Amino acid sequence: MKPLKGACIFGQSGGPTAVINASAAGVFLEAMKHDLITDIYGAEYGIKGVLNERLIDIRQEDVKELELLKNTPSSILGSVRYKLKPYSVDDSDYKRILEVFKKYNVRYFFYNGGNDSMDTCNKISKYLQSQNYECNIIGIPKTIDNDLYGTDHTPGYGSAARYVATTVMELFHDTHVYNTPMVCIVEVMGRNAGWLTGAAALASLKGFGPDLMYLPELPFDVDEFVSDVKKVLERKRHAFVVISEGIKDFSGKYISEYLVSLRRDSFGHAQLGGVATVLAGIISDELNHIKVRPIEFSLLQRCAAHIASGVDIEEAFNAGVMAVRFALQGHTDKMVVFKRDEKSEEYKISYELLDLEYCANTERKVPKSWIKPDRTGVTDDFIKYALPLIQGGNNAPYEDGLPRYAKLKKVFVKK
Amino acid sequence: MKPLKGACIFGQSGGPTAVINASAAGVFLEAMKHDLITDIYGAEYGIKGVLNERLIDIRQEDVKELELLKNTPSSILGSVRYKLKPYSVDDSDYKRILEVFKKYNVRYFFYNGGNDSMDTCNKISKYLQSQNYECNIIGIPKTIDNDLYGTDHTPGYGSAARYVATTVMELFHDTHVYNTPMVCIVEVMGRNAGWLTGAAALASLKGFGPDLMYLPELPFDVDEFVSDVKKVLERKRHAFVVISEGIKDFSGKYISEYLVSLRRDSFGHAQLGGVATVLAGIISDELNHIKVRPIEFSLLQRCAAHIASGVDIEEAFNAGVMAVRFALQGHTDKMVVFKRDEKSEEYKISYELLDLEYCANTERKVPKSWIKPDRTGVTDDFIKYALPLIQGGNNAPYEDGLPRYAKLKKVFVKK
Repeated sequence: MKPLKGACIFGQSGGPTAVINASAAGVFLEAMKHDLITDIYGAEYGIKGVLNERLIDIRQEDVKELELLKNTPSSILGSVRYKLKPYSVDDSDYKRILEVFKKYNVRYFFYNGGNDSMDTCNKISKYLQSQNYECNIIGIPKTIDNDLYGTDHTPGYGSAARYVATTVMELFHDTHVYNTPMVCIVEVMGRNAGWLTGAAALASLKGFGPDLMYLPELPFDVDEFVSDVKKVLERKRHAFVVISEGIKDFSGKYISEYLVSLRRDSFGHAQLGGVATVLAGIISDELNHIKVRPIEFSLLQRCAAHIASGVDIEEAFNAGVMAVRFALQGHTDKMVVFKRDEKSEEYKISYELLDLEYCANTERKVPKSWIKPDRTGVTDDFIKYALPLIQGGNNAPYEDGLPRYAKLKKVFVKK
Repeated sequence: MKPLKGACIFGQSGGPTAVINASAAGVFLEAMKHDLITDIYGAEYGIKGVLNERLIDIRQEDVKELELLKNTPSSILGSVRYKLKPYSVDDSDYKRILEVFKKYNVRYFFYNGGNDSMDTCNKISKYLQSQNYECNIIGIPKTIDNDLYGTDHTPGYGSAARYVATTVMELFHDTHVYNTPMVCIVEVMGRNAGWLTGAAALASLKGFGPDLMYLPELPFDVDEFVSDVKKVLERKRHAFVVISEGIKDFSGKYISEYLVSLRRDSFGHAQLGGVATVLAGIISDELNHIKVRPIEFSLLQRCAAHIASGVDIEEAFNAGVMAVRFALQGHTDKMVVFKRDEKSEEYKISYELLDLEYCANTERKVPKSWIKPDRTGVTDDFIKYALPLIQGGNNAPYEDGLPRYAKLKKVFVKK
């Protein structure tokens, strides 16, 4: 079916990354090349920007600034964590979206996010189809957690992995300077998937990696952990530990839940963080007040554009470009996925499509065969997988010794 | 007096920085150029390496690896926090030092560190003079805290400041993505001087700086702080706060001491989080459970070589070079200091000497006139001072997408 002429809307959703704006740049700059696309809108705060009719007119932005989005961290349009109810339960949001889409003749909708955002895309697409409103909807993957189903990896992961590996190398140097025993416990993001925690192993390639790593894919036992640390300290003075924020006990309960009062975000996810500090306290108590330094990478790992991976920036940009091209070819209800050419010696990626249905709400975890049998590290397969994703750097322009980020005018369309 | 022919020892002391090894490179590479210097030794773990006769033979290292020290974070020889007793109280360490110096005919001693290390230098120098042992002793400044007396700034500060400014810019983007109120509290190192905390203001130059900053030079009042945050939130949705780890109340007591010590988790374990975490809890309680994100820069700020300042690397290297040259000119009992040419439009530094006596144990703080009258920020004078120090980057070679650090063979001399 020949695609319709009309406007496009692009929105950003979920937690930001160092390169999500690169995908925005890809969508905007590619959309400008095609006559079928009339207006180009950025939705403020994701799907909320559609519901509230807060649409930024991207055609009024300087192309130079849009190019700079490639090197600008976080979600320039604003993001949201908002879960649409099934329309069988409450269709008011869907009706509103259709109303806005009709008003602005929106025929292309691009949504950049993780599992939950793909669920949002999927629901909107299904609803619009049920109302016979033609609109091509393409999801663009994003998450530092790298846990999206059906894609070799996700934009955002490579940069966060590069941050983790580089910072672990630096911290390794810092925490080994004194001739006194010390334990360093670094906490890395990743609620249920250990991709980012595993990236610390890349530092081992250079000889400056962790002694112990704990991914959330396998159960975590506090006593075993204390014993692991003790064993390391029997053969060397310093123990360097990297743990995932999402480590769980044998019953599947988050370790952090033992001590931190459980909060949940609007998607129902537990809000984690702080488990390194808790474990540091335990190690200090159990190991005769040994010096322990807990370090949380916190938001730093997801917004560190200055050390973003060049491969990641390029792929995130291309994912945006390809989303537009696929939509203009008539595809809809799909997410852009990365396929790695497994036969090629060199790292090579192609961009394909996968049904949104498969992408939504399924978490892709680190294969258990990539985790060492003693649970305290990852295998060479993991390294082989992750290493190509952290290559190259961010060529952002600098001014006054500081990065020059994109500045958008953000002219909102009149309602 | 003509300097003697003999060996030199170089040691690193105190907390590491991103560029302390650049000073090591400066000392080693310069020392190799002069015939008066016979052996070149690196002391393992600072002065402890002299006491324990653990001396690394630097002439056995590859020059290429020594060059790479310019881009290698932390103290490659190992560091120490060891304060020599006055020799009137206990001269055993001094006797041992003299013994080792005599054994290896050490005529040049370079010690790289902060206030306490300059005190060590000074005591050793005075003792050796009292024993009529000729040895030229030059201190090389180092500290991210920038609190050394008598120098415009210290090597290590510029890189840490660049880390703080850049990371604050990134975090600013990350913490502003959602349309929901949020407070971010970043904790920066600096026990008694606010130089590094103040560097966050450089991010303001680009429009992405903190709303509130608290330096340790002025007393901190928790109620006032809560009221400051409230005021920010009355005019905008997000409040971005940067505090020094060393903020103190009106009686001079560290805020961290009386708040953090109270915190034990439900198992009775000590909570090792810093003052930002404690203040975050207070803000959450006082402001109706508003979302608060405490972030500690922790060790990251002092070892982030990947974002080191080019100016800082060069100056740290030159400080090492100049220490050797000054010593060979017959100077002793001095520290290398940086003098800024205040008349020059362009930033210009010259390397001079100052008596160790003045440098030891005196803390240089941010002038109160550079702190805004409402205590929540710094003035343009501060910006003008700090901005030249964060210029340029680290041109470290990369391998596999990761920095290539120096690898030393560390051949110890036979005792």
